[in-house]
Amino acid sequence: MVKFSLHFENLAPQAACDSLLNAIARERESQKSGYYHLPFEDKASKEASAYISSHKDKLDSITHLVIVGIGGSSLGLKAIDSMLSHLPCRKSIKLVFLEHTDPICVAQSLQDVQLERALFIVISKSGTTIETSSLLKFILHKYEILKNPHNKAHLLIITDAQSPLEQWARTESIHYINIASNVGGRFSVLSAVGIVPLAILGFDVEAILRGAAGIMRRFFEQKEAHILHKAITYAKHYEQIPMNVLFSYSSIFTHFNAWYVQLWGESLGKINAQGKRVGLSPIGLIGSIDQHSFLQLIVQGMQDKSVTFLSLNPACNPKPIIPDMQLAFLETTNFVNGISFATLLDNQRIATMQTLEHEGILVDCIEVERLCEESVGTLIAYYELLTSCVGALFDVNTYDQPGVEFGKKRLRGLFK
Amino acid sequence: MVKFSLHFENLAPQAACDSLLNAIARERESQKSGYYHLPFEDKASKEASAYISSHKDKLDSITHLVIVGIGGSSLGLKAIDSMLSHLPCRKSIKLVFLEHTDPICVAQSLQDVQLERALFIVISKSGTTIETSSLLKFILHKYEILKNPHNKAHLLIITDAQSPLEQWARTESIHYINIASNVGGRFSVLSAVGIVPLAILGFDVEAILRGAAGIMRRFFEQKEAHILHKAITYAKHYEQIPMNVLFSYSSIFTHFNAWYVQLWGESLGKINAQGKRVGLSPIGLIGSIDQHSFLQLIVQGMQDKSVTFLSLNPACNPKPIIPDMQLAFLETTNFVNGISFATLLDNQRIATMQTLEHEGILVDCIEVERLCEESVGTLIAYYELLTSCVGALFDVNTYDQPGVEFGKKRLRGLFK
Repeated sequence: MVKFSLHFENLAPQAACDSLLNAIARERESQKSGYYHLPFEDKASKEASAYISSHKDKLDSITHLVIVGIGGSSLGLKAIDSMLSHLPCRKSIKLVFLEHTDPICVAQSLQDVQLERALFIVISKSGTTIETSSLLKFILHKYEILKNPHNKAHLLIITDAQSPLEQWARTESIHYINIASNVGGRFSVLSAVGIVPLAILGFDVEAILRGAAGIMRRFFEQKEAHILHKAITYAKHYEQIPMNVLFSYSSIFTHFNAWYVQLWGESLGKINAQGKRVGLSPIGLIGSIDQHSFLQLIVQGMQDKSVTFLSLNPACNPKPIIPDMQLAFLETTNFVNGISFATLLDNQRIATMQTLEHEGILVDCIEVERLCEESVGTLIAYYELLTSCVGALFDVNTYDQPGVEFGKKRLRGLFK
Repeated sequence: MVKFSLHFENLAPQAACDSLLNAIARERESQKSGYYHLPFEDKASKEASAYISSHKDKLDSITHLVIVGIGGSSLGLKAIDSMLSHLPCRKSIKLVFLEHTDPICVAQSLQDVQLERALFIVISKSGTTIETSSLLKFILHKYEILKNPHNKAHLLIITDAQSPLEQWARTESIHYINIASNVGGRFSVLSAVGIVPLAILGFDVEAILRGAAGIMRRFFEQKEAHILHKAITYAKHYEQIPMNVLFSYSSIFTHFNAWYVQLWGESLGKINAQGKRVGLSPIGLIGSIDQHSFLQLIVQGMQDKSVTFLSLNPACNPKPIIPDMQLAFLETTNFVNGISFATLLDNQRIATMQTLEHEGILVDCIEVERLCEESVGTLIAYYELLTSCVGALFDVNTYDQPGVEFGKKRLRGLFK
């Protein structure tokens, strides 16, 4: 349901692919990151089912699902929900993210949210992320959540076992669900972090996991060699080609682009085991809009970018159609009359891709045949595996983010 | 009202600044681009006033302003409207952009739009941009606009004199307003392209122009030397520092970031007069959100990015406040209790900035004291001038986009 194709002139030697696959297999076994196992576990989906069936009445009446969480606690969920919001199973619950310390966002986000018709899910591995803790205090105060057990039942906590947040939740008798401590935020969307809210929204979360499990199984069975080739090519040329554009041809991929940017940037921008600074800079674009913004730079700039085209089969959206109208003086635009906007968009992608290939730019394609839970699970796991592969080649710890801590310490100092 | 500060270790020699300023002054005189003159002209604001007073009854009753246009025809307007939407003068008209060939966007954007309560503005220099012409046909058909003069009065065209679109409008007796042919799309927001819709939305467009005129006048009077220093530093190091991050600390700058990305990328990513590929890649980030996404890469990656921090005076948004709550086990988060979210956000910016400076990364700041029409005009003209300066140093034509044409030709070929 998802087709991957590399338009690369040279592929990596078999030995390099074998060696990389072995390194990733060893990493999986080492439990350095637990994300490799999530698609094969039913822990999160079972916990989601249990929560949903024990809170059926409340969940049937909610109009808003408010997620309090930032970065890895919100980006994956937002990405999946916006890719799948067209599915008939998606309940008409408004998904609101409270993730920002921006006062304008904080004030506006909760305008229509009433406690009685809302579920708040606070997602944080520790609970001490300053955005999340401040916003938690804000909702506790605004909705008087701690006042009584009835109000508390509108709050759910997703956090690491034994974290400060879990301990607080236990003190207050608030429901909590755990995530494995070896699953980092940006690799956590297939854990309870994503699965519980997605199940509440009505999606078939088992199908998402199935899609992820499929590509992961095939990858380890040496049937998705394109991932290895792409990672090796990117890692080899990271100094000449330090930027990787994900050019997604539909607005529904806007949040998927943002998820990719975090995954790629935060996993790979590191000081490696040899003390060398490495990294690849992710750039998310939306076609056709950004053909009128960023494309000039890719075509005629310094050729320091690779480009991945992500697209939807135009047959998914046969309507609307460009009317067959002849406008005087505008006859040069008639060549698209009578075709669907989706066909025009897809041909814009192909024309752009051909232009870039002609200029010698490294190009590959991801074509989604049908946008459903399974294909979205495949996309997520694909990018996670690709990131792990490049991280292994860079010899970095793909799963930490030490550079972010410096600013957190300084922030605390500013308030002393 | 807007404070600019460079945290650079070395500044450019005076002779280099003088030479660059002279080059830009000559460029302004040459009429190569007309954008330098827009803030000092009253053509657009007078045309806007005339249109508004002659269509008062219709405009008083509209609920939707629909802009059909892409790239430079939409990004600047979207940026300014979202930065100023808090002003009391902003009418409660919904601003809708029809800019994308994405079938899902096309179908959704017009869901609540009725012809009787809407004004459609089609903005295109030529009218032959395939997105704009296709969407024009779509609205003409959907709303039967050409059926009678009454319907036609809900359409306004903004285009170059004698363009195919103007000629079509004349044939159909549809109202049109011209833009100067030497003002390119991405430099056009202070022409009728931005000024007319902004005036219809209720903004004081003369104040926007005044803000732009102020910084432009001071620049040519050698009183804004920081622009020259920044341009010279960026151009000098473009190979080692090929990416320029605009890290904007408020969600209201999201569309301003997108405007910057187009302006910077499309103006500077070029083959220069010596046949050399040059360019600087723009990246727009939003703080604090992207501290949890892209920051790790800036801090510990290859140090190939400069960072500009754009922020709002926290005194503009004294509320909401982080409640003074002590949560058991979460005591480490108490240091922000009782302060405003705006103060937290601004301190997050300062902490991040200090971290980057400490790592030796090129940093500068733009602080908006009060977010009003004038300061927004200043911001727009600041970035336009900076772009022209870097373009002059690169020896490129800052105002064309030849690389975009290749794809347009291929697209036509695909339909043959």
